[in-house]
Amino acid sequence: MLYELAKRRKTVRKFKKEKPPIEDVLYSVKVANEAPSGMNAQPWHFLLIESPQKKKQIREVCEKAEKCFYEKVRGKLKEWLSEKNFSWRKPFLEEAPYLLLVFSQKGAPYSRESVWLAIGYLLLALEEKKLGSVPYTPPNLSEVAKLVNAPESLKLEVILPIGYPDDPKPKYPRNESNLKIDTF
Amino acid sequence: MLYELAKRRKTVRKFKKEKPPIEDVLYSVKVANEAPSGMNAQPWHFLLIESPQKKKQIREVCEKAEKCFYEKVRGKLKEWLSEKNFSWRKPFLEEAPYLLLVFSQKGAPYSRESVWLAIGYLLLALEEKKLGSVPYTPPNLSEVAKLVNAPESLKLEVILPIGYPDDPKPKYPRNESNLKIDTF
Repeated sequence: MLYELAKRRKTVRKFKKEKPPIEDVLYSVKVANEAPSGMNAQPWHFLLIESPQKKKQIREVCEKAEKCFYEKVRGKLKEWLSEKNFSWRKPFLEEAPYLLLVFSQKGAPYSRESVWLAIGYLLLALEEKKLGSVPYTPPNLSEVAKLVNAPESLKLEVILPIGYPDDPKPKYPRNESNLKIDTF
Repeated sequence: MLYELAKRRKTVRKFKKEKPPIEDVLYSVKVANEAPSGMNAQPWHFLLIESPQKKKQIREVCEKAEKCFYEKVRGKLKEWLSEKNFSWRKPFLEEAPYLLLVFSQKGAPYSRESVWLAIGYLLLALEEKKLGSVPYTPPNLSEVAKLVNAPESLKLEVILPIGYPDDPKPKYPRNESNLKIDTF
């Protein structure tokens, strides 16, 4: 049942060293490619990164921007971040065996909506293959896009570090009362 | 396998009169509620509409805006719409037994991204229950939000007409070469 899969899936920031088969990662992309999209434009683009040097570069660029962000952050978000023990350090960008970068095609109809919908498909497919990930959005997505030589026509939406989960953190509970289902 | 579900799911604009059990619709919302979201804010809100009068009103408001849109549309989009036999008429807004309106919480972190990701979960859950739908985004989402008295803090993202499929149109093919997987 899909609910079991959705319920089981939690965000993972720590990964085992063991590298999962690339076929399992590509499977999740194949599932995502079946998502609907505006005008069936399929405005998604995927870049899979395995190179340790490239992962290191991405980590450095992201952490630089995260440092600035953490210095400036205030209020409720700051409290939440410190309560959850988050910091500017993003070791998962190097530790995860894979980084999957997901881009949207600029100017395609409902491009960003379609791509995020497809990311929903993708995360469930990763869970099916027992792969963990976190939808990571650094403050400087466009800098990362440049670093990997993405064409100007693509917008980087998310970085998905992917690997076998090794994260003791439980899934954050969902608030059932958040299900504000009103009916007419 | 999730791929079977994703592959089978196609957009449906014609529905059988028979009303599916409301539990199956609510199941899809329960699945969507398990999606990850920025700061775990779960910034989604659902409004389920069954009233024939309310559906009629929504259809009227949407078709008025669609008429304007179809009068103005030009170029590639116009060609695509006419080739696919689309018009300003949206009978599915009245014919579908249910309309599920999905809202995002304005100002929540990565609110729209999170909600569209959750819509990905939701569409797969509908397919599991053999329910059809189309992610319908009229040009005047904010007018529809007003019509259903949504609070100002919510942004209407999509209208999902839901029912048993009765649509002979096949699934539009996906372009495998669209899977631009580069690796580093």
